[in-house]
Amino acid sequence: MGGKTMKFVVIGGDAAGMSAASRAKRNQPEMDVTVLEQTQDVSYSACGMPYNIADPDRDMDDLVVRSAPVFRKKQGIDLRTGHRVEAIDATAKTVSGHTLKGESFEVPYDKLLIATGASPIMPDLPGVDLPGVMGLKSLTDGKRIKGFIRERNVGKVVIIGMGYIALEMSEALRARNIEVHMVKPRAAFLPRFNEQLALMVREEVEGNGVNLHPGHEINEIKKTDDNLMVVCPDLSIEGEMVLVSIGVRPNSRFAEKAGIELGVGKTIAVGRSLQTSNGDIYAAGDCADAYHVVTGKKTWVPLALWAGRGGWAVADHVSGKDVSLQGIAGTAVFKVFNLQVAGTGLNGDEALKAGFDPAWVTIKSRSRAHAHPGSKTILVHMVGDRKSRRLLGVQMVGQEGVAHRINAPAVALHAGLTVEAFSQSDLAYAPPFSPVWDPMLTAANQLLKKM
Amino acid sequence: MGGKTMKFVVIGGDAAGMSAASRAKRNQPEMDVTVLEQTQDVSYSACGMPYNIADPDRDMDDLVVRSAPVFRKKQGIDLRTGHRVEAIDATAKTVSGHTLKGESFEVPYDKLLIATGASPIMPDLPGVDLPGVMGLKSLTDGKRIKGFIRERNVGKVVIIGMGYIALEMSEALRARNIEVHMVKPRAAFLPRFNEQLALMVREEVEGNGVNLHPGHEINEIKKTDDNLMVVCPDLSIEGEMVLVSIGVRPNSRFAEKAGIELGVGKTIAVGRSLQTSNGDIYAAGDCADAYHVVTGKKTWVPLALWAGRGGWAVADHVSGKDVSLQGIAGTAVFKVFNLQVAGTGLNGDEALKAGFDPAWVTIKSRSRAHAHPGSKTILVHMVGDRKSRRLLGVQMVGQEGVAHRINAPAVALHAGLTVEAFSQSDLAYAPPFSPVWDPMLTAANQLLKKM
Repeated sequence: MGGKTMKFVVIGGDAAGMSAASRAKRNQPEMDVTVLEQTQDVSYSACGMPYNIADPDRDMDDLVVRSAPVFRKKQGIDLRTGHRVEAIDATAKTVSGHTLKGESFEVPYDKLLIATGASPIMPDLPGVDLPGVMGLKSLTDGKRIKGFIRERNVGKVVIIGMGYIALEMSEALRARNIEVHMVKPRAAFLPRFNEQLALMVREEVEGNGVNLHPGHEINEIKKTDDNLMVVCPDLSIEGEMVLVSIGVRPNSRFAEKAGIELGVGKTIAVGRSLQTSNGDIYAAGDCADAYHVVTGKKTWVPLALWAGRGGWAVADHVSGKDVSLQGIAGTAVFKVFNLQVAGTGLNGDEALKAGFDPAWVTIKSRSRAHAHPGSKTILVHMVGDRKSRRLLGVQMVGQEGVAHRINAPAVALHAGLTVEAFSQSDLAYAPPFSPVWDPMLTAANQLLKKM
Repeated sequence: MGGKTMKFVVIGGDAAGMSAASRAKRNQPEMDVTVLEQTQDVSYSACGMPYNIADPDRDMDDLVVRSAPVFRKKQGIDLRTGHRVEAIDATAKTVSGHTLKGESFEVPYDKLLIATGASPIMPDLPGVDLPGVMGLKSLTDGKRIKGFIRERNVGKVVIIGMGYIALEMSEALRARNIEVHMVKPRAAFLPRFNEQLALMVREEVEGNGVNLHPGHEINEIKKTDDNLMVVCPDLSIEGEMVLVSIGVRPNSRFAEKAGIELGVGKTIAVGRSLQTSNGDIYAAGDCADAYHVVTGKKTWVPLALWAGRGGWAVADHVSGKDVSLQGIAGTAVFKVFNLQVAGTGLNGDEALKAGFDPAWVTIKSRSRAHAHPGSKTILVHMVGDRKSRRLLGVQMVGQEGVAHRINAPAVALHAGLTVEAFSQSDLAYAPPFSPVWDPMLTAANQLLKKM
């Protein structure tokens, strides 16, 4: 055939981007693969940052999974760190921007992957730019937080937000014996979770000395003599550091400018092979939307596994393989103090909005068999559809046996199983690990009665 | 309608029998439900016995889930303990036998459930009847073992057999600081498991001071001055107690005599609503066979969940409901010392025998994310079919995160997913619980390359 070498350019060197670049080189070693990353860090475990911050003796660079030189030398990827892309010219098929040193660059592509991730939302508040007010997304953010705690010997932190990263951070800070206050405007704690499950988590968090202040609008962040102060209409909380963790927004700005169609929540809209509205341009990871396997509709759940899977899919498609990703079930788990909190699929409200006729049930079960020592409470919330009889979602909270248990209903959602079919699953039983009827089966059996 | 009250008779008061009796009374409180149980014990956690024996301070009766008086008074079940059934007259529709006091009885039935369970196989060896040679199946067996250890202050036990109950018992005895030797004729350790996984378990067992002697035929059990001696051609092992744990056989003798068709391994053959070859007679629990969801063929895996599920299904069918059980995936888990050992579906040999064209892979992964402290090795063995592309089976061993993880492939087997579809599952990730790519996904990705 002859022909020129395919030029595959990736914007962003984290999970999706480096997965795509590595797999493209494995698929076709002759492919010309360039990665443009604005920071100096590639391929690190972002989700591991709270656990690293918890331990003053651990180096933050432990989180780096593979270093830039390895990607360059061993994998033959033209990895350019410190390269900030600012524009895509979809007609000329080039991307351009500036290096950290201020030099401009322009790179041509045949196929382009936008894997720019998401950035922490910083609220539009007076004082949000004060030193000591931090977001947590990049490794640089993590290093800045950890360094600040060490240098200032921080004893008191105010966290704005109560999502799972905020909660993981509260645990990390408590592990360092730091006083923690958490504040947010919305009254409900873990609003995506069933109330009974959310209450169990809330009691665990408060039981570990975290001060929760939900339901407080925030007016401003002020500088006091030595500290910062988060000011609400009816509450002011002081701390040496303010951590803002109210969610992330997709980095889709220059994609939008290049005329690429956007999707849910200003993500970049992609099809099942992760192509954008421009067939030569892909998007994957936290900046792109995804199909939900339960609703069949577009959604946005920025999580690490989907980013890696998306990167691989793009590499395969660019390499000429047939690729069609089924989508996500929205499976997630987090640990907070001694609790495991997990969910997959839809909650009742989401099911209603998606046009289902949901029934749900919340049951209390045990993590081990009757009379087995050390058994703990497990709460299971399960949602099914009265019309199609399908299983729609499961949430669980407990001290043990929750994190991996959620994978069974996740698979059931992918397979489109009915609650009845799920209730017939041959799940594992041994006294140290479960009652004879696994808590999920008990929930399914109870749910069937309500459907 | 008037008509007479349905007379439902259940033979056997353990998991399947009491589940059926209780549910039948819940379904139709007016139903006349009689349970005939040969021992004094009903509804106890048989699987919990090794853990109870491990702790000298725990009462064995802790394992009783619900006592006979509760079944009688609160649930209105005519529960007759000490009633040993010896014959079924399928023409006259009666069962007959003797009580422990030697009185004969005869009970008529409209519908009959045989839930007689299984008994430990006692090998045909000289000396197997000596005092101190024990099997473990009933609560009485468990009490006898525990009492013998206490009274004789047992310091050394020989276990014949190395299956999962034998291994659970080895752990229980080591917890009481008892010297344990295990011996069996077959050379392979855990032959149903992949060799690499079996080796990991073997090293754990030996690392905890258990002396394993596989590959030794047993000639006899002898009485010595104070002890018992298990005599092999090339090995003699002394102990104060000999525990025989070489498997169980279904209690199907009087079913066979009554002309009921037998199935796999002398079990009672049943259909998807658990009716035997006689439409008025059901069988459930360890004495009955079952459909395997992977092969669609009959199999026999005597486990507690299936017994309870079978009991419910029989009660529902007797109550006039439509019942069709999908079957079992052969999902099982056990703990041995610090390892969790789990499997579901077929291994490679079984897949070959069932007519599949299997490919398999064994991978080594970690229980937690990159750089997360406390991470342990997880081995995953996965089997798929080259022709249909289906997932056929998964085995796993590890110190943590195995017992509940196995439920995801179990559900996949029920749903008949391909390895490709399973590999696309949105499984849970957080650093304390898993790598980004769950070990099962890594195994599926590797297996796809071999298919």
